[in-house]
Amino acid sequence: MEPNAEGRLEETVAEVDRLLERHRLLEAVARRQDTPRSALLEEMQHRQNLVELHKRLRSLHPADLGHILESLPIGDRLVVWHELTPGLAGQALTEVSLGVRESLIEHTSRDALVDMLRELDADDLRYLSESVPADVVDEVSALLDARDRSWVEQTRAYDESSAARLMMQDALVLRDSQTVEEAVALIRRRGRLPAQTDRLFVVDSRNVLIGSIGLGTLIIADPGAAVTSVMDSDVRRFRPYDDAHEVAKAFERYDLLSAPIVDDRGKLVGRVTADAVMDFIRSSAGDDVLALAGLRKAEDLFAPAVDSARNRWPWLAVNLATAFIASRVIGAFEHSIQQLVALAALMPIVASIGGNTGNQTVALVVRGLALGQITANSAWHLLRKELLVAFLNGALWGTIVGLFATIVYRSVPLGLVMTSAVLLNLIIAAIIGVSVPLVLHRMDRDPAQGSSVMLTFFTDSMGFFLFLGLADVFLL
Amino acid sequence: MEPNAEGRLEETVAEVDRLLERHRLLEAVARRQDTPRSALLEEMQHRQNLVELHKRLRSLHPADLGHILESLPIGDRLVVWHELTPGLAGQALTEVSLGVRESLIEHTSRDALVDMLRELDADDLRYLSESVPADVVDEVSALLDARDRSWVEQTRAYDESSAARLMMQDALVLRDSQTVEEAVALIRRRGRLPAQTDRLFVVDSRNVLIGSIGLGTLIIADPGAAVTSVMDSDVRRFRPYDDAHEVAKAFERYDLLSAPIVDDRGKLVGRVTADAVMDFIRSSAGDDVLALAGLRKAEDLFAPAVDSARNRWPWLAVNLATAFIASRVIGAFEHSIQQLVALAALMPIVASIGGNTGNQTVALVVRGLALGQITANSAWHLLRKELLVAFLNGALWGTIVGLFATIVYRSVPLGLVMTSAVLLNLIIAAIIGVSVPLVLHRMDRDPAQGSSVMLTFFTDSMGFFLFLGLADVFLL
Repeated sequence: MEPNAEGRLEETVAEVDRLLERHRLLEAVARRQDTPRSALLEEMQHRQNLVELHKRLRSLHPADLGHILESLPIGDRLVVWHELTPGLAGQALTEVSLGVRESLIEHTSRDALVDMLRELDADDLRYLSESVPADVVDEVSALLDARDRSWVEQTRAYDESSAARLMMQDALVLRDSQTVEEAVALIRRRGRLPAQTDRLFVVDSRNVLIGSIGLGTLIIADPGAAVTSVMDSDVRRFRPYDDAHEVAKAFERYDLLSAPIVDDRGKLVGRVTADAVMDFIRSSAGDDVLALAGLRKAEDLFAPAVDSARNRWPWLAVNLATAFIASRVIGAFEHSIQQLVALAALMPIVASIGGNTGNQTVALVVRGLALGQITANSAWHLLRKELLVAFLNGALWGTIVGLFATIVYRSVPLGLVMTSAVLLNLIIAAIIGVSVPLVLHRMDRDPAQGSSVMLTFFTDSMGFFLFLGLADVFLL
Repeated sequence: MEPNAEGRLEETVAEVDRLLERHRLLEAVARRQDTPRSALLEEMQHRQNLVELHKRLRSLHPADLGHILESLPIGDRLVVWHELTPGLAGQALTEVSLGVRESLIEHTSRDALVDMLRELDADDLRYLSESVPADVVDEVSALLDARDRSWVEQTRAYDESSAARLMMQDALVLRDSQTVEEAVALIRRRGRLPAQTDRLFVVDSRNVLIGSIGLGTLIIADPGAAVTSVMDSDVRRFRPYDDAHEVAKAFERYDLLSAPIVDDRGKLVGRVTADAVMDFIRSSAGDDVLALAGLRKAEDLFAPAVDSARNRWPWLAVNLATAFIASRVIGAFEHSIQQLVALAALMPIVASIGGNTGNQTVALVVRGLALGQITANSAWHLLRKELLVAFLNGALWGTIVGLFATIVYRSVPLGLVMTSAVLLNLIIAAIIGVSVPLVLHRMDRDPAQGSSVMLTFFTDSMGFFLFLGLADVFLL
């Protein structure tokens, strides 16, 4: 179960791929053969192959298994999935992304799922509780001891993006009356430290957090010293309902490896560790990439096509509605186009450059918001700066576009209209590109989700309107 | 210098903002006042304000200072910057992003920069060496002892996205002949553990890495035991030239807090720690968001407008070139548009829905590549799936678009042409959306950079060509 030293994961993936390839081949042969004798032979080979696959999978680290499940198309994924022992399957389930997890759970019987979840600890069970049917979670958590059960119940209640969702239960806790020697004895009794432990927490008699002690301090300090005399009492702590993004930022900023979570009375309820934060940073940054493109967060790369298509509908529908409006803007100028058909060929350029520059602004603002770099004061500076950039870009690219139009259609007035339309559209793109993500953020919504579609709506419609309108006034 | 407990960073930012506000106000007043007496008074107030700012800044954690510098518009940023002591300024420099770092260094005299860098350790100096003029780095590293100097020299040579760039020098190292007791004594002698230490590394007499010991093991193990008898010999290790992305993936996957870096002979050269990996994950994921929008990686949110504009030119130029080509595609069908002007109003819908669905595919593939989930085998499955999704979406949205065209222009043939054009354009979008990032990745280029522009080129040009071409054949 140890991670492969020296990064042999690629080889493992290739090996599993080879076994799956053989599996598919044998299945295909089995379908074609009819004579009982060779069918039996095939069957035997088939079984032998699966046994080999089973053996190979059993030796893998759950994280590697998770990675393999993520990278396999759905058919192969299920072959691998059904070869796993319940314990390994449960652990692998905690390692895969939400989309893949849902696809696996969908293809697992209720009983098999219960078997898998029984093998997990309370932290893992809580982590999976969003994706698993509530009655299954209830059944499994009923098997836990009272403390673990109430932990699962309590933490399930918190919001998906709260600190509580990153929280683990297994912290090593010292009482303020203990000595360094007793702390060491505590660790010895446990036999090993909980994963990702860099410090022990110190609480008073009411379980209120009063400090923490790094492992280095425990090693260095005088064994007879009171823990309170060597502890660090200025500990960065979080509440269960804090935004997980804020927790992640604090970990990055202060190079934390673990941090305590306390309730409103200051009582220690759990801890957040670096591994959970790393996973969170990766997945929330990846979500931004998807959200900007108008995708719901959790799409599995190899989801069935119907599920994928449906996942993409909401924003496509919005996009289409805005495209219809843009189309009606053009429709209103049909008489102008009829008189000067060059307008039809040139108008998409105005819309396109507006959309592109605006999307650059949107990406910058979304990233700035994710990093917490935009304040009320700096938002104005940002808008002013983006307007200036838009003006510079508009003057430069507008002139180039104008020259293109002048040369291709041998008309200076047409070129001037083109230049003005590009300049104005870039200014609109800057305003929309800065303000839409900011407004969404203010409304406590994800600034990445939908910003781009909204922006394109404005840059398309206004691009067409400005260009055709100016042409109508000055050229016709 | 301790991080604020309970997340008081927001208040600090607000306080610094207030001081800066007063600073601007006093400066504005000073410019207007001419009588010497009140000028002196203003001057005194002004100084007092700066002293207060100076004091406030000095109490901040360098990471908080970095955050404040990031979120300030350039003018305010420099006021804060010039109030910092060299030591604090040097540390803050390691905390800010590349773009902001460049802006700060640009506004710092060579001598001041040397003063700041002298206060840093070899790791921090190496980290900054990309952004600082080479002769300044040389001058400062000449002041380091021989070992540190050669460390800076050696690690500077590695590629920007290599494991070496995440590497730190300060690892605690044990010899294979030592006992647990001696290891503890070593830590005691140092007085404290290097930051982010969860394990000590064990080397043989030739400095070849043979294992590692977690701090928990050191606490639990029998003091008389040889370190080789309690160490973990299966340590995930990396080479200096390994891709930093691979290192980050391994940290996430195996929940590592630190890992050794060894050279080709297996000798220990340094270690990578969780804090560096977290920063790397965040910044590379943020880079994807920017790259997909056609921005170079390091743009500072508050860079001077001219710098920002120039930063965005390369992809805008490409975008414009492709827009010109798309425009010429339309130009080739001017006679058709003249005959049926409705075509001009409808054609952007075909291009727009193609661009949007294609960008959804691009985002999925870019994220899948970033997570290492796409293999040669699964790429085909992905393409097939995306084609199926395109077909489903094309049939659905194509029909809706066709109905829109039929109703608005009262022409069933026009609606059918529209439906077919949308369906075909979505299929092209799927092919381009899957293959462009994959090809860029195969060519060892960033799949996020430019994928979107290339895609839009195809979906625009082909959208116009398909729609106008079909209309030309079937309607006119």
